[in-house]
Amino acid sequence: MSVEVIGVEGLPIIQPGDNLAQLIAEKIRFKDGDILCVASSVYSKSVGNIRHLSTITPTEEAIRIAGNTHEDPAFVQAVLDASEEIIIDAPFILSLLRSGHIGVRAGVDHSNVEDGIIILLPEDPMAAASSLREEILADTGINVRVILTDTCGRAFRRGQTGHAIGWSGMTAIRDFRGDHDLFGHELLITEEAVVDEIAGFANFMMGESNKGVPAVIFRNMEVWKGHDMLYFKEKEDLIREALRECRENRLV
Amino acid sequence: MSVEVIGVEGLPIIQPGDNLAQLIAEKIRFKDGDILCVASSVYSKSVGNIRHLSTITPTEEAIRIAGNTHEDPAFVQAVLDASEEIIIDAPFILSLLRSGHIGVRAGVDHSNVEDGIIILLPEDPMAAASSLREEILADTGINVRVILTDTCGRAFRRGQTGHAIGWSGMTAIRDFRGDHDLFGHELLITEEAVVDEIAGFANFMMGESNKGVPAVIFRNMEVWKGHDMLYFKEKEDLIREALRECRENRLV
Repeated sequence: MSVEVIGVEGLPIIQPGDNLAQLIAEKIRFKDGDILCVASSVYSKSVGNIRHLSTITPTEEAIRIAGNTHEDPAFVQAVLDASEEIIIDAPFILSLLRSGHIGVRAGVDHSNVEDGIIILLPEDPMAAASSLREEILADTGINVRVILTDTCGRAFRRGQTGHAIGWSGMTAIRDFRGDHDLFGHELLITEEAVVDEIAGFANFMMGESNKGVPAVIFRNMEVWKGHDMLYFKEKEDLIREALRECRENRLV
Repeated sequence: MSVEVIGVEGLPIIQPGDNLAQLIAEKIRFKDGDILCVASSVYSKSVGNIRHLSTITPTEEAIRIAGNTHEDPAFVQAVLDASEEIIIDAPFILSLLRSGHIGVRAGVDHSNVEDGIIILLPEDPMAAASSLREEILADTGINVRVILTDTCGRAFRRGQTGHAIGWSGMTAIRDFRGDHDLFGHELLITEEAVVDEIAGFANFMMGESNKGVPAVIFRNMEVWKGHDMLYFKEKEDLIREALRECRENRLV
């Protein structure tokens, strides 16, 4: 049982309007079933999902928060605009996006982009993953699976890791419900967030900084069954509730 | 740039006293620099780091908590014994271990083990990873790197993923401080928790349930620089503080 993980090298710096699927397909010969992981920032840039800081007028709220986070108020305004709900706003902004993803600074990015420009996460990352998949099928006739990745912090542990924010051709969760262990007991751990495990290692392969490897292929990957409920519902989410309670207590 | 990820198949069910390093080395021909990921539960079982539930007398505290978590009080006692500090005790126990890892049920496991037995996480997982590495070097003359993995839940997102709890021959964090992006800006995201990204994908390869693949090799992996401060210090850990505050407020 062996999987090959290939970093797609030699891609140019992606610009708004570039056909990302085609550029990747020129650099790698896909095989049916390949899982293609793409950095969401690069996807967003290709479809022009960017903003120019100079065009953003911050609200009083953004100016207030920026005083706490020591960030550009225009940048904070872009984070607020991209957010469905602010969970905490100090010492950094942690917010819920419309996609269900919860992330620091709403995933708004100003690395690997020209000065004065910020890159937003795809507004509908599931549709984005699906469209990349369809474009590759149309270009090459090959049926790949796609994960869009973002780099996020975690609870309790320092450092960022890659997470999945959109996926197509697979379920987010591999579901073992009803399975039994080696001794015939029904499993306690039944839901494995496999898209995040794959996105994490894709992020390792991409590196940060100036390596410029925004796409990674996983070859010879099995097919699994499961479901797409990757995000906790509000009532299930202990940590979100605890953070919100703390924030409210401080406001009193 | 390509990495090969190999699941080590055909291992027997590991028993206390088994020489795990030797059993793995019989199934796979290592190469220098390979990263070997091993499920911590299988390591623990091999070194006899298990308890028999019938030998555990629960305290009143364990009985109280077990009433809330709907678990066997003897199991809860084992979790308390393995914990340095209980962060929350309902609806499940989340605790800090002496190693610095924070996990649900202190990582105490009763899947893939005979009835009435539970498996504890290694008491010193860094030393455990180091000893596996040294045994493989002694057995085979090959210098591998080692990660011990555990399956853990996450904040905001449903489903478990593999995490690193011990490692040897590498740093936990790949540190990009001082690096620049494609446009020459100093990087904002500077610390990548690469051991967790590798452990996560190892967990994908292992599967849960009855596949019986407790060891995974990553071949052709680069070497990186960084540090081993994988766990937040208490003052840095917003979520731990929030959970603790909520717990204390309820006790008042």
